[in-house]
Order: sequence, then C-alpha cells, then structure tokens
Amino acid sequence: MTKKASHPLKENIRNLKCCFHGGLIKENSEKYNIPEQDILDFSANLNPFGTPFDHPEYGLDYMQLAADALKESVNYPDNRYLEFRNAAASFLNKPNITFENIIPGNGSTEIIRLFCQCVLDEGDKVIIPYPTFGEYEIQCRLQNAEIIYVPTKSIYDLTEEELSAAKIIFICNPNNPTAVLRKREDLLQLAKKCARAKTVLFMDEAFIELSDPEESLCDIAAENDYVFVMRSLTKCFALPGVRLGFGVASKNIADALNRARLSWNLSPLQEKMGAAFLSMPGGVNSDYLQKSREMILGEANYLKDELSKVWGFEPGVATTNYLLIDISKRTLDSSAMAARFAGHGILIRDCISFKGLETDYIRIAVRTRDENVRFVQTVSKVFDEWAKEFAEYELQNTLANHKRGGRQNERETCGYYPCHFEGQDCTFCYCPFYPCGDERTGGTYVYSTKRNGKIWSCTDCYIPHISSVVDKMLDGLMEDGETEDLLKKEWQEIIVPILEERDDNTILAYCRKIKADKK
Amino acid sequence: MTKKASHPLKENIRNLKCCFHGGLIKENSEKYNIPEQDILDFSANLNPFGTPFDHPEYGLDYMQLAADALKESVNYPDNRYLEFRNAAASFLNKPNITFENIIPGNGSTEIIRLFCQCVLDEGDKVIIPYPTFGEYEIQCRLQNAEIIYVPTKSIYDLTEEELSAAKIIFICNPNNPTAVLRKREDLLQLAKKCARAKTVLFMDEAFIELSDPEESLCDIAAENDYVFVMRSLTKCFALPGVRLGFGVASKNIADALNRARLSWNLSPLQEKMGAAFLSMPGGVNSDYLQKSREMILGEANYLKDELSKVWGFEPGVATTNYLLIDISKRTLDSSAMAARFAGHGILIRDCISFKGLETDYIRIAVRTRDENVRFVQTVSKVFDEWAKEFAEYELQNTLANHKRGGRQNERETCGYYPCHFEGQDCTFCYCPFYPCGDERTGGTYVYSTKRNGKIWSCTDCYIPHISSVVDKMLDGLMEDGETEDLLKKEWQEIIVPILEERDDNTILAYCRKIKADKK
Repeated sequence: MTKKASHPLKENIRNLKCCFHGGLIKENSEKYNIPEQDILDFSANLNPFGTPFDHPEYGLDYMQLAADALKESVNYPDNRYLEFRNAAASFLNKPNITFENIIPGNGSTEIIRLFCQCVLDEGDKVIIPYPTFGEYEIQCRLQNAEIIYVPTKSIYDLTEEELSAAKIIFICNPNNPTAVLRKREDLLQLAKKCARAKTVLFMDEAFIELSDPEESLCDIAAENDYVFVMRSLTKCFALPGVRLGFGVASKNIADALNRARLSWNLSPLQEKMGAAFLSMPGGVNSDYLQKSREMILGEANYLKDELSKVWGFEPGVATTNYLLIDISKRTLDSSAMAARFAGHGILIRDCISFKGLETDYIRIAVRTRDENVRFVQTVSKVFDEWAKEFAEYELQNTLANHKRGGRQNERETCGYYPCHFEGQDCTFCYCPFYPCGDERTGGTYVYSTKRNGKIWSCTDCYIPHISSVVDKMLDGLMEDGETEDLLKKEWQEIIVPILEERDDNTILAYCRKIKADKK
Repeated sequence: MTKKASHPLKENIRNLKCCFHGGLIKENSEKYNIPEQDILDFSANLNPFGTPFDHPEYGLDYMQLAADALKESVNYPDNRYLEFRNAAASFLNKPNITFENIIPGNGSTEIIRLFCQCVLDEGDKVIIPYPTFGEYEIQCRLQNAEIIYVPTKSIYDLTEEELSAAKIIFICNPNNPTAVLRKREDLLQLAKKCARAKTVLFMDEAFIELSDPEESLCDIAAENDYVFVMRSLTKCFALPGVRLGFGVASKNIADALNRARLSWNLSPLQEKMGAAFLSMPGGVNSDYLQKSREMILGEANYLKDELSKVWGFEPGVATTNYLLIDISKRTLDSSAMAARFAGHGILIRDCISFKGLETDYIRIAVRTRDENVRFVQTVSKVFDEWAKEFAEYELQNTLANHKRGGRQNERETCGYYPCHFEGQDCTFCYCPFYPCGDERTGGTYVYSTKRNGKIWSCTDCYIPHISSVVDKMLDGLMEDGETEDLLKKEWQEIIVPILEERDDNTILAYCRKIKADKK
C-alpha cells in the first residue's frame, strides 16, 4: 500500500489541473459585467440550426417529456437504459449494432473517463496527438497514466511498435480544434495496426454528425475490442445542458463498461430526451441533421471567406461547425484578442490550453448568418480599437523616450526601413494623426481586397517623418493637457500651415522633391 | 506498464460484478407481467411524505423549473455550480460550511466513486463494515483496492493500528440496511482515532435527514481532511430519478475533488431542482423535512408493531424510512419470499447481496399508512399461500414415498417428536385437512397475539397420526383423481364416520384415552 502522506488524496489528484473549456458564459458575464443574455458565444461549438425543440415540424415536445420524466423520477431509473440504448443503436443504423453495443453517458466526457478508468493502470502509456481536445489528457492523468504526445499530422506514421507501447491512442474526428476530418479508409488502416499492437483506437466522434457521419468507425467498434467510438448528443442537438453521450463497443467491452459505469448515470429526462432525439426518422441522416449540415457548410465557408480578407487571419478547413484561425501574424495574441472580443459581448476560444497552438490561434464556432455577420463586423471593431490603442501606446512610449532624451531618429535595424524615404525620422513610427484622410498630405484611400473595403494609405506622406516637423510635434506634445487635445491643436498649428504651404520652410515642397527623387 | 492481455480492460474491471440495488420496477414488471403502475415498491427507501412538488404549500413549481432549465441548456452549465453549492451549504446550516466545502454529485454514488478514485491506489486497503450499502465495495473494487470486512458492531473496537492499515473506513449513518443510527459523540471519538491513523472516515449520511440530522458530522468534515461526509437528495426529497447528492469536505479536499470530478456533472435542471429543494426555509429542519420525519417515525413504528405479530418476523430498530426484518425462523428464504411478494405486486428487498444477512433478512421501506396496511395484509396472504403450497408439497412427497414403500411411521429424530402423542404416526406431519375447523377432532381455535387473531390449533387432534387411519388415507390418496377431490372424498368416507363414531374401531374413543393418559 502507498505510504501515507500528510493528505489523503493521491499525488496525481493533488496536482491535477482543471480541463479548460469554452462556453464560460456566467464567468465572462461576471468578469466583463455584461448580462448573460447579451453574450454571443462563439467559444462553444454547437449546432447553429438550433435544438430539435426549436423546430415544431419535428414534433418533439419538451414540456411533455419533462412532465413524463417527473412521474418516472419518483422511482430509481432502470439502470439498463434500454430505451436510450435501443434508440442510439437505431440512430447509428448499422446492421451489426444493437443496444448491447451501447454505453450511455452523462455527457460524452463521462464516457472518456469511464474508458480510461477501465483500461489504464498507473504508469500505463497513452498516445495523445496534438493539438486536440483537452479531456483525454485530464482523464488519463486521473489514472496516473504517462502521456506520449504526437503531432496530429504524424499519427499515420506511427509504427506498430510505437503504438504497442501505449494502451490507448485518442483520435478526435473531426478534430477539435483543427476541424480536420479524417477519412474512414485511412482510419481503417490505423485500426488494423492498433489491433495488431493491442492498442485501443479511441475515436472521439463528438462532431461527426455535424460534419460527415460516413467517416464514422462505429460499425468497426461493434466488432473489434480495439476500436472504441464515443458520440455526443450535446453538439449535434445543440443542448449541452442536457448532458448526453454514448460509447459504441463490442458486446464484451460494452457489457463490462456498463457494469463498471455509475449506476443510474442518466435521469429519466435525459433518457427520454436522448431517445426522442436519436429516434428522429433517418437517424444520422434525419432531415434535422441533413439541414444542419447544409447550413453549417454554408456558414463555415461564409466565415472562412470573410475572415480570409482580414490581414493576419488565416482560417483553417471549413468541415464542421467551428473554424480554427491562425492569428500568429497579428501583434495581438489569442488571449488578449479573446478579452477584446469579450469586451464586445462575443466569446471566442483562445487556444492557450491547446498544446501546439497556444497564443497563435483562436477557434470560433459557426453560428447563424446574422451572428456570423456580427462576428465579422466585430473583428473590424476589435482591430480598429486595437490599432488606435496601439498608436496611443506607441505615442506615449515615444514621448517618454523623448523626456529621457533618448530620441531615435532613424531605425536602420527595422526590417521595414525605409518605409517612407531614405533618411526618414522614425520617432512617429505610428502616426498620431492616422487616419487623417487629408489627401494633401500625400496619403490616399486605396481598395483592400483583404479588408473588402478602402483603407487609408500613408505611403506617400512624409510630413511626420521630417525631423524639423517631429521636433515641433514633440515639443507641442510635451505641454500640459490631454494628448488628444494637444494633437488637435498640433494638427491646426503645425500640419494645416504645412498643407496650406503657409510655413516658412515649405515642407510640402520638400515632400514633393522626395517623391520625385523616389521615382 | 502492465503486460498486455488479450483484452484491453483491466483484470479487476473484467471481474467486476454489478452492485445490486432495490427499486427494479421495470425489470420486475417484465418478470412478473404486472403493469409498472400496479407495482408497490417497498424495495427502494424514499421519503413517504412525497416530493416537495406534491405539496403546493411549499411553492415549488416543477414545470417552471423545467422550462427555465431548457433555456439554460442551450449553453454549457457553469461548472462551478455556485447556485447548488451555496444552497447545499446553507441547507446544512453550520457556520463553518460554505460553498467551498461542497462537491456536487450526479447522485451520491458519483461522490463515492469520485472519492475512491481520488484516494485509492491499486492494493490500498479499505475497511468496510458489514452489513452495509453495496456501492462502497464496488467503487473500491474499481480502484482495485483490498477490502477488510469488519462487523458493524465492532467498528468502535478497531485500534488505531488496525485503522491505520486502511486508507478509508466507510460508515453509513443511519446504516443501510440495518437502520442503526450512530451517535455523533461516538463517531467523534472514531474520527479522532481516524485522524491520528490518517484514515479517512467516510460518513455516508444519505438517510440522515429522514432520521436525525443532529447526528451528522458535516461540520467536522469541513475542518478535517480525514472526515468526509456524503449526502443525498434522492432519498429525503423522494426523487431518485433526479440524481442529486453532494460531498462535504475541507476546502483543500473539496477544491481538489471539484477539479477532479467530471466537468458539467449536473444539468441545469438538476442544479435548479437541487437548489430549490435545499433552499426551503429551515434547511435540514424545514417544515417539509420535520413533517417527513414525524410521519416516518409513526409509520416505521406501526410497521414494526404489526410485523412483530407475525411468527418468524423480527423487525429491527425503527429509526428511519426502512426496516430490516430477521426472517431466519421462517422456512421461506428471503429471495423466495421476495419473489412471492412480487407476485402480489409488492417489491421488497431480499438481503442476498448484503454480506452477513443473505437469505435470512428482508428490508422494507416505510411508506404511507394505506400502503403499509396493504403490505401487512400481503404478508398474511403470502404465508397462507405458502403454507398451503408447502402442505401440498409435503403430501405429494408423502405419497411418492409411500409408492416407493418407504413409509416412515415415527420420526424419533425429529426435534418436535412427540408433538401429538408417544407412538404417533408421522406420515402426515402436515395434516392435509388443515385447517378443518371441526372441533370434534380435538382441534380448536386459539387466540394468537403474534398474528393478532385466532388460529386453528391441532395439538389435541390425534386422528391423522393413528396408523390404521393413515393406512386408509394413503390407500385413498393413491387412487386416480385430483388430490383435492380425493381429500374431500376421504374427509366424507374416513374422517366423518370417525367423528360421528360410526367407525368400527371407535377411533374417537381411542383419542379420548390418549388425551386422558397425557394428563
């Protein structure tokens, strides 16, 4: 027996960190002081088509189910859960799957936990590709298993020997958060290798109904002790609060897991709702799910197209109801970006908790057209605000630097130098007047395909990069007063005379010369 | 790492047996072909006062809670569960308990499982007193722990050294199924010993609200890493289908368990219902719970009194909403008895799965007066049926024996011999005419305090134990025909002539002589 520590909990439990998830509406409501109902949640990935109850044409009546459930709740649930398990089997619609292959779960997370508890001993190894869903790691750590991380791209390269070292390999298909959908034929090859290696291929198919259920391995799991499939009802029926998922396994494995799972893990309401959803005619190809997939594909592509126009936004594949966006080119990192979106009442998922993505990626859900439009508009708002704040920040830095006498006229080490002209003064790298909109400066509006609109280009404005002008600007900004007021004053007293060529040094003439020399 | 077996599951999981529970309404409905609504369930222990929704005076509106919960279910639950945890803390009404001491559970069983998962490594020892609730054993076996069984009576005798060998000792208070309620002052002594031994005292207080909440150790758990308290809402609010329980622990322990528990283990409906129940004014001493306890005490004593009158029924203490009954004196064992009750639409709990009780005990819930009366009446029916069947069975045995020529006139090895007179013929140990009700035989009705009514006593009837009569009876019963018809014929042709003293041998005169000699 383990030597007794000064604390009754096991070491791995004491050190356990919570799994980070999206959908933190209450917490963000408190943090940003926004009423919950005003929050638009792009951080949790749910079916944007709405719940089956939102569509009266499907004939499901929540209040009736709830009333029936109360009547049944005065007794313990029948722990066999035959209604739910039969419905799940018929939903999958494979000739070799019956209720005996189904393990009901209080959310799919309970299925991951149960499976890990039943397979992993302390010190056992598991393979977790990255980036992927965080719960595999947490549930394996609960079992004190050792985790081998492998890039998602390399999993087909794993040798039988490498697989053999592990008890389980977790594959999420489509993968959360990358949205990459793997092909069944490739997975079948991996399944064969896993069976030879006696390593369980744990397929998390939580999003497959919203992507392409044809790529599922559920029929393989029913026949093979070394393939296990996990499904979720939370995502595809847009009701994460109902907590429903299930596992698909061989009869042997399912029987043992059903014995080992928590007694009465589902309430009568869960069982009734689950059975009602899963029994919609057509199963994975019900009218509801087909329409959901059509809508998602359209909206995912809309978002991908619109967001591709944003400089520094590189959306990944549009296969399901979420998009991963590479933002590594932006100066704003993913958690700062998420905080700014939250300030506008929009939650996005920063990818800090995803190994391999961290600050360089955000994940957003695919929602309805109106909501997606609002998201795209908010992107512009967030970046405009950020640009403004960044310019203000840079200006304050410049002024502080000037006070210390550390003015830096040229930045020859800068990769962009000379962005305006040879010998330019770089003090105001970020022009405090941007975007002034006055074409007499040499600036002009240009059309940006990425932003899908006009933006102000200063390339041919040299005024704030001429040292004598910079001197005056700095002196003016050092006076007492609000920076914004001082800038308005400077525009009138320093810039307007230049533009009207009322200044003594005819700066504008000098600018014209620079432009002529450049050509 | 564990060597790979031919099966991905761990050895202890493959060998795991399900925990047996009462309340199998659907299964018994199928087995005995009785509609579910006609089944009266005495096998699950719930508050007979009804759910809070059954009492409009408490102002709880299920349909409103259900409607609100659906609105929230379109988002992930807030995994902090502050509403539920705050309500649980205020329910307990101890100055040192806040939400930070509370761990919410999808039923109290999830709390047992979580605690075992967080404390037990493979091979760790736990102490489980017997008889007691079966889930401790199952959850410990899931962790591959080693179980030390100790009789419930001996737990205060355990030395610090003996306790020290175990990581956890489980105490159920009041104990299920014995209903024994332990005193807080005794438990405090045990808690001190446990703290010194670094052994967690796991207090299962699932029934304490229906017994005496003053005996709870929840305030101790809040301060002491080596006392853990588990509570259930299932029993006291009579809604096992809602699946609600919670743990009470020190902040340290609670924080770690909240990190380790399943994310989103409660649905919004569970949280809302739980918070509504726990927030009824007065907490553990709410009007609802006080009235529940009054009713239970009255009904438990009613059942105990009535059942004490049944021969071979020895009910245990009446402290809570169930009674354990020692039926070891009856020839019918507990599972056969349960099957007979089920045949009458009443489920009782045989104690086969309780170590130390097995076939000798049954457990019944305390229900409403009408239901309890129906139970008592069914006891008489079950035993009358059984006596009749047993007599029929004995008669058939006697006849079969006679056919084989193996007639046994005297049974001098029988402990009851001579129950009628010295030299009696024991062939018809069970008189096939019982109860004939004819006082000319020497039999008479006597008052039984145990049965609370008259019963037929044959002590002074010698007729079916006189060999010449037995010969005639056996010959008659060997003829073709239904046994019942043959017996009617024998009564008319053999017994009535004796009673009317029309027989040649004046058997009745001989009987009078036996009686006179006995005096």
